Amino acid sequence: MRMTQLFGRPSKTEGTDYEIASHKLLVQAGFIRESTAGRYFMLPLGMAVHHKVADIVRRQMNKTGAQEIVTPVLHPLELWAETNRTTTAGFELMKVRDRRGADFALGGTAEEMAVDLVRKFNLSYKDLPFQVYQFSMKFRDEMRARGGLLRVREFVMKDGYSFSTKEQFTAIYDRMRDCYTDIFTELGLKTDVVAADNGYIGGEYCHEFVAPAESGESRYFVDEKSGYAAHEDVATFVQESPNDHETLRPMKPIEAKRGRTMKDGIAHHGLEDWRQIKDVLFVDEPSDRYILAVIRGDLDVNETKLMQLAKAWGMRLATDDEVRHDVGSEPGFLSPVGIAKKGIKTGRRIVVVADDSLKLIHNMYGGANAKHQDLVDINYARDWEPDITGDIAMAKAGMMSNEGGKLIERRGIEVGNIFQLGYHYTKLMSGAEYTDASGVRQPYYMGCYGIGIGRTMAAIVEAHHDERGIVWPAAVAPYAATVVRLGNDESIVKAADELVVKMEASGIDVLYDDRDVSAGIKFADADLIGLPWRITVSAKTIAAGNKAELKRRTASETNLVDLAAVTAAIS
Amino acid sequence: MRMTQLFGRPSKTEGTDYEIASHKLLVQAGFIRESTAGRYFMLPLGMAVHHKVADIVRRQMNKTGAQEIVTPVLHPLELWAETNRTTTAGFELMKVRDRRGADFALGGTAEEMAVDLVRKFNLSYKDLPFQVYQFSMKFRDEMRARGGLLRVREFVMKDGYSFSTKEQFTAIYDRMRDCYTDIFTELGLKTDVVAADNGYIGGEYCHEFVAPAESGESRYFVDEKSGYAAHEDVATFVQESPNDHETLRPMKPIEAKRGRTMKDGIAHHGLEDWRQIKDVLFVDEPSDRYILAVIRGDLDVNETKLMQLAKAWGMRLATDDEVRHDVGSEPGFLSPVGIAKKGIKTGRRIVVVADDSLKLIHNMYGGANAKHQDLVDINYARDWEPDITGDIAMAKAGMMSNEGGKLIERRGIEVGNIFQLGYHYTKLMSGAEYTDASGVRQPYYMGCYGIGIGRTMAAIVEAHHDERGIVWPAAVAPYAATVVRLGNDESIVKAADELVVKMEASGIDVLYDDRDVSAGIKFADADLIGLPWRITVSAKTIAAGNKAELKRRTASETNLVDLAAVTAAIS
Repeated sequence: MRMTQLFGRPSKTEGTDYEIASHKLLVQAGFIRESTAGRYFMLPLGMAVHHKVADIVRRQMNKTGAQEIVTPVLHPLELWAETNRTTTAGFELMKVRDRRGADFALGGTAEEMAVDLVRKFNLSYKDLPFQVYQFSMKFRDEMRARGGLLRVREFVMKDGYSFSTKEQFTAIYDRMRDCYTDIFTELGLKTDVVAADNGYIGGEYCHEFVAPAESGESRYFVDEKSGYAAHEDVATFVQESPNDHETLRPMKPIEAKRGRTMKDGIAHHGLEDWRQIKDVLFVDEPSDRYILAVIRGDLDVNETKLMQLAKAWGMRLATDDEVRHDVGSEPGFLSPVGIAKKGIKTGRRIVVVADDSLKLIHNMYGGANAKHQDLVDINYARDWEPDITGDIAMAKAGMMSNEGGKLIERRGIEVGNIFQLGYHYTKLMSGAEYTDASGVRQPYYMGCYGIGIGRTMAAIVEAHHDERGIVWPAAVAPYAATVVRLGNDESIVKAADELVVKMEASGIDVLYDDRDVSAGIKFADADLIGLPWRITVSAKTIAAGNKAELKRRTASETNLVDLAAVTAAIS
Repeated sequence: MRMTQLFGRPSKTEGTDYEIASHKLLVQAGFIRESTAGRYFMLPLGMAVHHKVADIVRRQMNKTGAQEIVTPVLHPLELWAETNRTTTAGFELMKVRDRRGADFALGGTAEEMAVDLVRKFNLSYKDLPFQVYQFSMKFRDEMRARGGLLRVREFVMKDGYSFSTKEQFTAIYDRMRDCYTDIFTELGLKTDVVAADNGYIGGEYCHEFVAPAESGESRYFVDEKSGYAAHEDVATFVQESPNDHETLRPMKPIEAKRGRTMKDGIAHHGLEDWRQIKDVLFVDEPSDRYILAVIRGDLDVNETKLMQLAKAWGMRLATDDEVRHDVGSEPGFLSPVGIAKKGIKTGRRIVVVADDSLKLIHNMYGGANAKHQDLVDINYARDWEPDITGDIAMAKAGMMSNEGGKLIERRGIEVGNIFQLGYHYTKLMSGAEYTDASGVRQPYYMGCYGIGIGRTMAAIVEAHHDERGIVWPAAVAPYAATVVRLGNDESIVKAADELVVKMEASGIDVLYDDRDVSAGIKFADADLIGLPWRITVSAKTIAAGNKAELKRRTASETNLVDLAAVTAAIS
C-alpha cells in the first residue's frame, strides 16, 4: 500500500487533548476516527489490525471445537423478557420497534439468542458438549463513553456459548481459560485471570482476563504468592479479630454531641476506627426495601457484594429525609440496634445486612438512631441480629489474602471474560433441553465466553507504545514493514519501487511511504504507526552500494543491508 | 469437521412448505435457520459459505484499490436530515434514541456516513480518486420479508463509496462494473447488467447485477441483439405512430352510456385500444398535488418513471370521492381536456403528466370529465396541453428496443448494484469538498457500489441446485468434499479416519459423515448439502483393494480410486 493512496494518514494535529495513550495514538496514526461519542469509524489501518486480531481469535476458537455462527443483531424482546433481563440488564438495553409493531433489543450480549437457536434443534446427550460463537456488533447504551476504544457504545465482540451437561462443564471452562490465555499470548498481551462478578449475565462464577494498564477501569487484587486474583467486586481477605480477648461489657447509651461522620465518632469517643459500627442506608427500588448495610468502621461497603447478597438490583443511597421521617432515625446516628422493621410513612421493609467482620469484634460503638445519642459496648448477636450476614466488605491493598499472601492492587483493561452460566438461562427459557441417555429431557448447562475486539486492540496499544508512537507486536501489525523512500531521483524511486514489489511477492505486507514530504515527517510517522520494521531507501543507502537501512521499531540501532537481502533479513 | 459434531445437521422435516428452492434447501441442509420473519441465524455451514463469498468480494474490491473500513451501525440521524433522506428513504428507516436523547438511524445504506467520514479529512486533488468499502449489517424495515435470504430485514452488505472528480468518474464506474462482473463470475453466477432506477439512493444512473431466476423480484427487459438491458422501472422502447397519416378531425363531445373501464370504452366506440386516452389520477401527499397521468390506452403507467418525472415521492391512487367531489370529474370519464386546475374543496393543485406516446397518435377518444360523456377526435397540443410530458410508459415483451432488437422479459435476483451519485450527497452535506489544483474547494463526485452477501448466497443456490439438493460451485462450497463412512467395523473406521486426516493435511476441507445412520440417509444428506465431491469408504470399497468410491455432485457415475490416490484425484 502506497502512503499517497492510503485513506487515513497520520495526523499529529488530531486528538492532541486525548488523555489515554491508545486513544490518542490510534487516532493520530490513522487507525480509527470518532463518529459520535463512543462510536468509531475503523479506518483501513485499523481494519488490517482488526482482521489480524479476529483471525487469531477465530483460529484458537476453532481449535477448541467451537463453531462459528451469526445471530441477528435485533433480538426479539420477548426472549429477554423470558429471562427477566429487560429489567436486570446492567447496561441500559437499546430497544427498537419495527413498523409492524414488533419490539427488539439491539444485541448487547446474546445468551437468549444462543439458547433460542439451540432449542430449535432436537438434540441428545450424544451431541454434547458443543459451543457456538460469533463475531458481531454489540450495543451498550453507556452513559459515559471514554478513551477511544476502551469503553464504547458499539463494538465487535466475539461471544461464544457452550452447551453441555453439568459434569462436562468444568473441563470446558478450563479449556476456554487455556484458549483465552493462548489467544492473548499470541496477541502479545500479558493478562491476569481474575475472579469477577457475573453481574447481569447471571451464573455463579466467572473470570475476567485483564491486561494490566494504568488507563484500565478494572481494579483488582492479586496475591502473587498463591496466584489468587480477584476483581475488587469479589475479592476476599482474612478477617481479623483484634480484641477477642476482651470480655463483653454491658451495652449502654450515652449522650454524644458530635458530627455525623465516622471521623467525628472516633474523635468523640477516642476509640479505634475498627471498633465503630459503620451504617449505610440504601433504598432498593425494584424490591421496595431499605437495605441497612452494617460493617466495621475501618472497612468500606462493597456495593456489588451487597447487591448480590441482598438480591438488590436497583440500589441508591437513602436521603436524609427518608432516614429521619420514614425510618425514624438520624443521619450519622443510624444503628442496627433497635432499628424499625418498616418505614413509618411508606411501610417499606427495612432489611439489616451485616458484614461477617462484625462477628469478630467485641464491644463496638455507634449511633442510637437519635440525634446526639450513641451506644457503646455493642455486641453482635447479643444486642442485635441482622436479617442477613455475609461478606460485603471491599478489600484493600496490604490485606492478607485467604490463600496466604498479601493483596497487591492492580488496574487493568478487561479484554475477555469467561462465565459459568449453569442452568440460569435454560431453566428460564422453556424447551432449552436435550434428551439424556435414559430418554429424559434435561436442561443444558451453559457457559459463555467473550472477547471485545476493539478493546483488545486498544489494550495492545496500551501495552506496546512509547513516547513516539505505537509498537505493534508482529502478529497484529497492519503491515510487516514500512519502506521509507527519501528523495525523488529516478534511481531512488526505481530502487524503492523494486524493493516493494519484491517484498510483496515474498508475501510481506508493506506500507510504502512514497510521499513528497521531509525525512523527519516520514520517520516520525513511521514511529507513530509502529510497524515492526522500517526500511529506508535514500541516495545515501544507494551510494553505499545498493543498500537499504534497516531498523526495528523496538531498537534504536540501524544497519545497512544489500537491497537484495532485505526480504531475507526481516523474514 | 465430523458430522456427529456439526451444529445444524440436515433435516428434511424443516421447511417442507417453503416455496423458494434456496429457502427450502438452505434451511433443510442446515445453512440457515429463521429467528423471526426476515431475520436469520447463519449456522456453521452457512458461515463457511459466507466467508468464502466475502473473501472473494474483498479480494476483488482490494484489486481495484478500494480500501476496507467500517462505519458505526448507528448513524446520527442528523446526517440523514442533511440529505433529506429521513423522509425520502424508500424503505422505512429504523430509528432508535439513546438514553441521552440522541437519535440514530439503523444503517440501511451508508452514503451519509461515508461522506461524513471523508469530510473529516482535509484532502486535495492529489488524493483522488479513492474508494472506501465495508462489510456490515444493514437494516430494512420491510413490510413483507420473503423467501429465506432473498428479501430480509437484516443482512450483511458490502457497500463501497468512491470519491473523485467528475472527469475521473466514468473510468471508476467502468472499473467497478468489471470488478462486479469478475466477482459474480468467480462466484459461479451468471448476471445481467441492467440499467435501473436510482430510487432513494439518489444520483442519475445506476445498474443492477441481476442473476436470472424465476424466484427473483426484479423484472427487466433485454434486447439480446444490442445488449441493451433495463429494469422494468426504466426500460424504454420505440414509440409507434400507427395513424400519423390521418388528418386531424375536429374534436366533438358525444353521449357515452358505458361502464368505467378501458374495455368498456373500446367496446362502446368500436375503436382501437391505442387510440383511447388512459387517465390515472394519483394524490402525492408530500407535495399536496393531484397527478393526472395520461397515456395511450394500450400502455400502462410506469409508476417509477412517473414518480421521477413528476418528483412525486408519496403517490397513492385518488379515491372515487376525490375524483367526483374535489376534482369535479367522474371515475371512468376522466380527461386531460378541460380538467380543473385545482381541487374544488382542497384547493390542491392538479398536474397533468402526459406520456410521450400521446404526441404520436391522431384523433384519440376518451372521457369528458362527466358521467356518460365522452370526447372523440381529441388531439394532443391542439385540444389540450399537459403540464409535464415525458416517458411514463411500462415496456412490454415483444416491443422494439431503441437499440434495434426485440425486448425479451426476464426475472432475476438483484445481487449487486452500482450507482452514479454525482454531487447528490456532497452538495447537500456541507464541507464534503477537496482542494483542486488551483486551491479552490470543490465537492466530491461520488459513486456507490453494493453487494448483498446473503442474497448472493441464495442466488447461487437458485442457480445451482437440482431436485436432490444444492450443487455448490467449488469456489464457495463450505467444504471441498464429504467423506461418507458406511459401517462401524474397525477396519472401515480406521481407513476413513486416516483418509480424512490425510486430506485435511493436504489442505482439503472435509465434512466427515461419521454418523451411525443408514447409507440412504448419508447419501441423501450429502446430495442435500451439495459439496463438490462425495467419497465413500465402505466394506465393499475396502474389499476391492483399499479403495474409496468417488462421485462428483454434478455427475451420476462413480469410480473406485485407491485410498492413497484420493487427495490427488480431487485436487
